[in-house]
Amino acid sequence: MTPALTTTTRTATKRTLDLGPAAELVSKEEGHRQPLAPEFVSAEDFSPLEVAYDFGRVRREDIESGPRSIWRYKRLLPVPSDVEQIPNTEPGCTRLVRADRLAEALGVRRVWVKDDTGNPTHSFKDRVVAVALAAAREFGFEVLACPSTGNLANAVAAAAARAGWQSVVLIPSSLERAKVLTTAVYDGALIAVDGNYDDVNRLATELAGEHENWAFVNVNVRPYYSEGSKTLAFEVAEQLGWRLPEQIVVPIASGSQLTKVDKGFRELGELGLVEPSPYRVFGAQATGCSPVSAAFRNGHDVVQPVKPDTIARSLAIGNPADGPYVLDTVSRTGGAIEDVTDEEVVEGIRLLARTEGIFTETAGGVTVATAKKLVEAGKLDPDAETVLLITGDGLKTLDAIEDKVGPKATVPPSAEAVGKALGR
Amino acid sequence: MTPALTTTTRTATKRTLDLGPAAELVSKEEGHRQPLAPEFVSAEDFSPLEVAYDFGRVRREDIESGPRSIWRYKRLLPVPSDVEQIPNTEPGCTRLVRADRLAEALGVRRVWVKDDTGNPTHSFKDRVVAVALAAAREFGFEVLACPSTGNLANAVAAAAARAGWQSVVLIPSSLERAKVLTTAVYDGALIAVDGNYDDVNRLATELAGEHENWAFVNVNVRPYYSEGSKTLAFEVAEQLGWRLPEQIVVPIASGSQLTKVDKGFRELGELGLVEPSPYRVFGAQATGCSPVSAAFRNGHDVVQPVKPDTIARSLAIGNPADGPYVLDTVSRTGGAIEDVTDEEVVEGIRLLARTEGIFTETAGGVTVATAKKLVEAGKLDPDAETVLLITGDGLKTLDAIEDKVGPKATVPPSAEAVGKALGR
Repeated sequence: MTPALTTTTRTATKRTLDLGPAAELVSKEEGHRQPLAPEFVSAEDFSPLEVAYDFGRVRREDIESGPRSIWRYKRLLPVPSDVEQIPNTEPGCTRLVRADRLAEALGVRRVWVKDDTGNPTHSFKDRVVAVALAAAREFGFEVLACPSTGNLANAVAAAAARAGWQSVVLIPSSLERAKVLTTAVYDGALIAVDGNYDDVNRLATELAGEHENWAFVNVNVRPYYSEGSKTLAFEVAEQLGWRLPEQIVVPIASGSQLTKVDKGFRELGELGLVEPSPYRVFGAQATGCSPVSAAFRNGHDVVQPVKPDTIARSLAIGNPADGPYVLDTVSRTGGAIEDVTDEEVVEGIRLLARTEGIFTETAGGVTVATAKKLVEAGKLDPDAETVLLITGDGLKTLDAIEDKVGPKATVPPSAEAVGKALGR
Repeated sequence: MTPALTTTTRTATKRTLDLGPAAELVSKEEGHRQPLAPEFVSAEDFSPLEVAYDFGRVRREDIESGPRSIWRYKRLLPVPSDVEQIPNTEPGCTRLVRADRLAEALGVRRVWVKDDTGNPTHSFKDRVVAVALAAAREFGFEVLACPSTGNLANAVAAAAARAGWQSVVLIPSSLERAKVLTTAVYDGALIAVDGNYDDVNRLATELAGEHENWAFVNVNVRPYYSEGSKTLAFEVAEQLGWRLPEQIVVPIASGSQLTKVDKGFRELGELGLVEPSPYRVFGAQATGCSPVSAAFRNGHDVVQPVKPDTIARSLAIGNPADGPYVLDTVSRTGGAIEDVTDEEVVEGIRLLARTEGIFTETAGGVTVATAKKLVEAGKLDPDAETVLLITGDGLKTLDAIEDKVGPKATVPPSAEAVGKALGR
């Protein structure tokens, strides 16, 4: 192992911290302010810390002349001013696909699919990890780490490799072989832990305390990490020609992505980069892990934790940290939250593949199926322009469609047999 | 089945064919000219037919103001003038990654990786299939078809779904379950054929003759299909700031991609879109299927067919149609061809992952490992800027790294155990 992994104190803390427009951290509950630091919970009110900015003036031209990656939005992110010059990944600028055939199937006038399967490791996690890495470097960290069961593990191991950093990725030892391979190939320190994901998570928090030079992307640098999700909102608005969509459907795991997409839209409006037109944010969960949807349905403002049981494993967070803030956002914008069964998730995957040629993982199936349910329930306006966030790739959750799809027929090698199989 | 599948004649042939700048077909051997048609072999000299153009004037601004997909190059492709308005996929504009860590590992001054894993179905096949679909529609075809064992099957099924076309994809019935799933999910007519890939290929040619409304992308519309590979050259040049690289390493299956990348570079030079600076084209094969590399080594100008035996299955074409033209191109540009063992292929995959966080399929491993071998042999100039074409995704060939990579350690859930595993 290299020295970086075994050092326990941050030695490289810089004289001047450059996190671009980031000004300070603010606690989400009571708005206590504190200097930028690798901390994630307010010591005052114990609520999550969030980055606050001093943007100055940001013009569309500044963004449009930037690189074809999330770094074009560096003036809106907690990253160094020269972030695109520093070794990191260049995620983002994924396709916004006009989905006319899906729209017709859903009975909605206009649907756009934000297809984040085009990212370097094929999920939106590349966005948040890239921002976490950029911030972590400024704070003097030297190792990129996370607990994960899938997409996050891929993204952290790949980003660290590209940057020349060490990575430490903790996974439950029972993780499927394919997910182990897609992380191990990047050759970081992949550690299998005998325990479930909760055990792994607890271990991560403990290790974050012990190793001062390890940045756990979703623990000690979480406030920076989570800001990466704003780039989904920025790209959607820019790709629509600098305007906000009327409706957007976002999957809910911790809930962070949904609240950050909303934050991104609001920032664009406040900065005059778009007309601050009204939009409604909708949340999507799998029924087998639907604590936020249940709270919404019951009119609660707190979220009751659940024990997850769903094929949508990348959304299976039973105690979502940002649950209450999701409820706030959805209520404020006039949206709604729904959940769908595992069977509907698979149907959602198949519907998107059949109509638009886009193969998404189970989380995307949740989004599509929830959109369908929301239209049928009259909650999603079929006449309003709607964006669906497709945040991960079907190649990573093949087990979900196994035994559900297959060849139409198996035939001997003759043209006649093919013709017969096709019903001629 | 819908009527389209069972109709055998093309009914929708248009009055005026609009294939943009495409002017006619020319036979590769003797240059016989014939009108644009869905034909692939010259009746005069039995050599492959290739598209010839009447480009007129094409300016960088025309391209730069186009969409973020291969359709920005429509003035250089055999596709309708309004191609971006017609339902199809929008592949291309994938990342050109400056690969400093890989360059250092290879001992080369400057390396760029063209990362085509970002395409809709994560391989370069989306480029050629999109062009084939656009041309096929103009010719009045109604069904998109192919024989395939992997990437092409994914691309055809997805593109047809997005366009609202029927697809017929023929696969050997022994194909791995994962590859069946990733095609079947798009819900076209996936037909498993009891036989090997040669049987499936023969069946495709037979069916192409019988079903006049079926466009087999790599059979009857092959001249149009193969032009799609030029977009790799166009993008590399545009992404380098409108100039040609000094060296490029291209994997060889049929050999079509390599010859078309060269054609693309030449067209850019002839049109004055780039300075026509010299470049050298290098070819990469797996030793287990290296007929073109063997011919190059032995100074032959014909290629002796082989029986493929390599893990690089997407390159495993034992009798490559464009083999002789590859030899011409490589000799003319002053390049070379090499081949690498399956072990080296896996090392190539791991090297790219470890240094740049890019996980490629076996074909990409062939390209990286061949580049390494060419540098070591003094054939690739370490002081010349070099582009590597990474044409497919590691998620599709997980079996290649299975048993080669894995967790560094399996530990109980304690911080001490993790520390020990990391050598503290």
